[in-house]
Amino acid sequence: MADTIDRQQGHHHLIASDRVEGTAVYNNAGERLGTIKNFMVDKVSGRAEFAVMQFGGLFGVGSDYYPIPWDMLVYNVDKGGYAVELDKARLEQAPRYGEPAAGHDNDYADMVRSYYDRQPAPFI
Amino acid sequence: MADTIDRQQGHHHLIASDRVEGTAVYNNAGERLGTIKNFMVDKVSGRAEFAVMQFGGLFGVGSDYYPIPWDMLVYNVDKGGYAVELDKARLEQAPRYGEPAAGHDNDYADMVRSYYDRQPAPFI
Repeated sequence: MADTIDRQQGHHHLIASDRVEGTAVYNNAGERLGTIKNFMVDKVSGRAEFAVMQFGGLFGVGSDYYPIPWDMLVYNVDKGGYAVELDKARLEQAPRYGEPAAGHDNDYADMVRSYYDRQPAPFI
Repeated sequence: MADTIDRQQGHHHLIASDRVEGTAVYNNAGERLGTIKNFMVDKVSGRAEFAVMQFGGLFGVGSDYYPIPWDMLVYNVDKGGYAVELDKARLEQAPRYGEPAAGHDNDYADMVRSYYDRQPAPFI
């Protein structure tokens, strides 16, 4: 398994949160979509659920913030950023907000999951 | 279950990574230990494994960075920060490094887990 090989070779499996923040995001056509502003972590499980991508605007003014399910990010070494399988048209219809958020509530998170065809979080 | 009640009341279960960063950390005696510099996320699972606490130094110079297992953090609303069950003496013997890190490799992460009496990560 790739993870066993990496463990034997001592690869870094853990990345710092402030290194994820600011990383560029591309789609699979190689178009640069934006950068990761921050990511949303479940307070109980500690699991990163969404990366929030900053996109649009000019010189940092008028950007929108797009929460994207964390599992959609794939790091591309050649590009030096994350690749996500999203064309610009789909992204333009995606949930977004105008100012960075401190957190997401459960209803909003489920709505985002639904847009990206993911299951809602379990009711536990 | 607390989580079900919170879900019904629409509480935020997801917190932004850049809100975790900079949060104060106290021990259970109420002593302020430091602040969260960043936290370490598993690239594959997206799970936060360690919070890295910045402690010591003066005006940001000469601080040390202490990785602490994420599950040791408990948010204390009254204090406005995380409580961790660690006295200063134990912390002073704990693994630390002198500059912020971009990531942790598996061997280092296992050593930190061992210091805090946690199991090493599974070999998958």
